[in-house]
Amino acid sequence: MTGSAPGSAAAITTVGLDADDTLWHCEPHFKLIEARFADLVAAHGDVDEVNEHLLAVERHNLEVFGYGVKGFVLSMIETAIQLTDGAVPADDIATIIDWGREMFAHPIELLPGVAETVGRLARSYDVVVMTKGDLFHQESKVAASGLAEHLTGVEVFAEKDPATYRRVLDRRGIAAHSFVMVGNSVASDILPVLEIGGRGIHIPYDTSWALDHVEGHGDGYVEIERFDLLPGALATFAA
Amino acid sequence: MTGSAPGSAAAITTVGLDADDTLWHCEPHFKLIEARFADLVAAHGDVDEVNEHLLAVERHNLEVFGYGVKGFVLSMIETAIQLTDGAVPADDIATIIDWGREMFAHPIELLPGVAETVGRLARSYDVVVMTKGDLFHQESKVAASGLAEHLTGVEVFAEKDPATYRRVLDRRGIAAHSFVMVGNSVASDILPVLEIGGRGIHIPYDTSWALDHVEGHGDGYVEIERFDLLPGALATFAA
Repeated sequence: MTGSAPGSAAAITTVGLDADDTLWHCEPHFKLIEARFADLVAAHGDVDEVNEHLLAVERHNLEVFGYGVKGFVLSMIETAIQLTDGAVPADDIATIIDWGREMFAHPIELLPGVAETVGRLARSYDVVVMTKGDLFHQESKVAASGLAEHLTGVEVFAEKDPATYRRVLDRRGIAAHSFVMVGNSVASDILPVLEIGGRGIHIPYDTSWALDHVEGHGDGYVEIERFDLLPGALATFAA
Repeated sequence: MTGSAPGSAAAITTVGLDADDTLWHCEPHFKLIEARFADLVAAHGDVDEVNEHLLAVERHNLEVFGYGVKGFVLSMIETAIQLTDGAVPADDIATIIDWGREMFAHPIELLPGVAETVGRLARSYDVVVMTKGDLFHQESKVAASGLAEHLTGVEVFAEKDPATYRRVLDRRGIAAHSFVMVGNSVASDILPVLEIGGRGIHIPYDTSWALDHVEGHGDGYVEIERFDLLPGALATFAA
């Protein structure tokens, strides 16, 4: 552990940015497809709790297939087969795969303030996107985002755990105490970074979904409401 | 272009190693599943040229879904639906997904000489695995390979093109002229590295499949027959 007291005065050199639901909308695309999926499965029988079953299949498959749209599509296909006892027609399965294609092709919608703020951050810090999921898809999304010119790099993680953050920082020659991770997930973006001696700024994607609320530096990280408040929050670390 | 004459005398500091069919067997697992797939589809009609159709679907999907087992599984499902005009039963589709799970769980079988040779290389060079495909699966395979202790790092590329090699080398502070890439694919492992001023060593996975044969440094890269010849081939670069 490089360890640095939260709120200590070491200068920040590098800002890590989560991508899905931090830089651009992602969760609503999954929710939209889940709603379509529930309709599709319901058409083949009296099926309750489609979403719960899908979530259980996803959890199971996550350990095998990892994160991302392709694993989600495979989980939907398995769920449809299981819940309909094999009655789901092949054409509907083809439709589910087309939804996956649609998710890959979905245009990037940046969250408010992101474009200007990332450009502003890049004048003071190295800015590295650090995201989880499908390598190919995540790199495509960064390319389509228009943010690439402001970035020092893009890192796609198979898992956002302390060891992976440590490895990526080491590889880039970044001291943990000069690093801040910014993201919408306390579990993936904040806690593992605090554990290796870095700092965190939490931006809940939708405050109504946020299970945790922390104000100020109390638990070692900062929470802000909007992406455009980021430069100000970063400045407090250097105070 | 950093440009360095092929065969010039700059010292090699870093060896990049392709993974699938360079460090361990991979292609045979795909061939095995393709054979099962042809049987499965043939059971539902008089279907010729299953493999050709699958290959066409894969090519089309590659641009959307990228490389790896999950994309392969989705392509098999689409091919089965198309070739049987939707007559493929849902249970068979579940079977195809189980094949994907089986491929992910397949134990790593290192190629002859790899374990000893990678350990030996690590005493003289930084050794970085540079592979293409599914991030989660490739990192799992490296972890299961027993080679991790000898590696400086693992890089999974969405695409093995000159720009990606350049970006990875820059990030790691490696000068192209001190870098050698080793792999079974001339197109993915050798030519893009030569283009950015690095060196290449080609180890055909199965000489009966190799479409290209080059001896010596004629075209700017070396070809060797077996992985255990690698230390000797690397030594010729430093001569």
